Amino acid sequence: MAEITYDVLGIGNAIVDVLAPAEDAFLEAHDMVKGSMTLIDAARAEELYTAMGSGAERSGGSAANTVAGVAALGGRACFVGKVRDDQLGQIFAHDIRAIGVDFHSAPATGGAPTARCLISVTPDAKRTMHTFLGACVELGPEDVDEDLVAASAVTYLEGYLWDPDSAKEAFIKAMGAARAAGRKVALSLSDSFCVDRHRDEFLDLVEHHVDILFANEQEITSLYEVENFDDAMQAVRGHCEIAALTRSEKGAVIVAGDEVHVIDAEPVDQVVDTTGAGDLYASGFLTGLTMGLGLPECGRMAGIAAAEIISHMGARPEVDMQALMKEKLG
Amino acid sequence: MAEITYDVLGIGNAIVDVLAPAEDAFLEAHDMVKGSMTLIDAARAEELYTAMGSGAERSGGSAANTVAGVAALGGRACFVGKVRDDQLGQIFAHDIRAIGVDFHSAPATGGAPTARCLISVTPDAKRTMHTFLGACVELGPEDVDEDLVAASAVTYLEGYLWDPDSAKEAFIKAMGAARAAGRKVALSLSDSFCVDRHRDEFLDLVEHHVDILFANEQEITSLYEVENFDDAMQAVRGHCEIAALTRSEKGAVIVAGDEVHVIDAEPVDQVVDTTGAGDLYASGFLTGLTMGLGLPECGRMAGIAAAEIISHMGARPEVDMQALMKEKLG
Repeated sequence: MAEITYDVLGIGNAIVDVLAPAEDAFLEAHDMVKGSMTLIDAARAEELYTAMGSGAERSGGSAANTVAGVAALGGRACFVGKVRDDQLGQIFAHDIRAIGVDFHSAPATGGAPTARCLISVTPDAKRTMHTFLGACVELGPEDVDEDLVAASAVTYLEGYLWDPDSAKEAFIKAMGAARAAGRKVALSLSDSFCVDRHRDEFLDLVEHHVDILFANEQEITSLYEVENFDDAMQAVRGHCEIAALTRSEKGAVIVAGDEVHVIDAEPVDQVVDTTGAGDLYASGFLTGLTMGLGLPECGRMAGIAAAEIISHMGARPEVDMQALMKEKLG
Repeated sequence: MAEITYDVLGIGNAIVDVLAPAEDAFLEAHDMVKGSMTLIDAARAEELYTAMGSGAERSGGSAANTVAGVAALGGRACFVGKVRDDQLGQIFAHDIRAIGVDFHSAPATGGAPTARCLISVTPDAKRTMHTFLGACVELGPEDVDEDLVAASAVTYLEGYLWDPDSAKEAFIKAMGAARAAGRKVALSLSDSFCVDRHRDEFLDLVEHHVDILFANEQEITSLYEVENFDDAMQAVRGHCEIAALTRSEKGAVIVAGDEVHVIDAEPVDQVVDTTGAGDLYASGFLTGLTMGLGLPECGRMAGIAAAEIISHMGARPEVDMQALMKEKLG
């Protein structure tokens, strides 16, 4: 068996976020569904960007945020994703490397520009996202190195990868390589609309291929098309080795066979922007897991990491995360 | 005399800021002078960017920040500056328009990319800037429309324009057009090192061409090569119609012929990032002035605007500035 070089290998859409505050009226005027992620084309991206207020650009992308969090927490992390050789692509590559993640995916030299996600943050701290996938559609199985997957304790995949066709193939290849090497496969369901788009395939993934599942309440109830959280929890418990189900301010429930751990949400002084909450939850959880901690401790680390990210704008950590964990966990 | 379309026309370097937190040791390791602005070439920009932590990109530029602040305060503002037709250029154009500034300068279609300023923000909230001027060197007199200048109550010029040669020509053309049309010329000295580079020419500007001067303590003492603030204040009082001299937490002194107004600094809960403090001071002052307010009221507006900008990362307003002024001034 190959040596483990990385605790977590993340594969996902490589995206630069454009964050701008917005009023609820702005969402209504532009037919936006609060809290959701909608895929848009270049023309709609242009239209929405023109309508948006002055923004701040920060590297984002769901799995990219997660591995950035893992690296910030002291884990060994690697990312696979596709940018173009443009300015936003350079920003993405700089930021993920600067936080300590290895990132070697070759940028696309033609085609669409680096992906961007237009994020409207309303006064209630909820984020509404519109993603122009751009160069992410160029990610394909050729970008997945099976040796790299075999050298990673956990391969973490975002459900959003199911949207661009060739990225889905990359996803499947990585998943197969992880299984073949006896490594763990982790999946984030990403978004309830994403679950809607790919429900049958996601059910198959969860039932047969995924070891560690991350989902929030909306996503897991959407997956099983059930009315309430408890039914969803019962449905998932036989399937994955571990399911970490998040419920915002109600905390999270971690289900692992017969084990069920209910973990309170970490208190937050002021929730500023929920962008990245789920991503950083996964960072904390997977870092704990690859450190060999028990599930309640993993859940606690996850909650602390999520609490940090929602206390400020943007989906990448802004404080010394290792010091934060020491302070909180002692 | 032409009708006045704009309260303030700003002409300056069109720059996107890359803000990242940094420790003092980082400044030392890279021979940076805290609080200063250093011009760098593309190679040094690449080197420093690689060394910097994960950042957030926001539109910046001194005069651009000032007119953005004027627009946020309800003034009619226009900006002239040069970006390239690249992603950072699009971000710059979007952000300045989104805040309500008219911006019609044609982007460069070749040559260097849009300018960026690498800003290291240390825990003491001081910012240390390294600017790659990029496309700003393409700004020239052809970009200055004399009718536009004549239609603007105040033409606001940043001292930094004296760095790229053809931008200096643009500066001189704009100044001449403003004088010819009987409009006011305002100048920010920008930075004490910038004053060092251009002292003789800046002295000539201040003595013969500028109506409203903005300078901080370091800049004005550097200009007159005097030891202390009082000597500098005495030196400048005969020259400009109005000189607004800022002293950080010591507040500001406004000198206008025989009038001298000492204005306390506005209290700030937490100083997070001083980037843009001087720029937004000028926004508040010029907005007050073009509204017809007295100098003490202009100084108060200036201080409130500066206090807002230093309470968060970035040099563009993040709150409803008109509501803030109403709240503070009644």
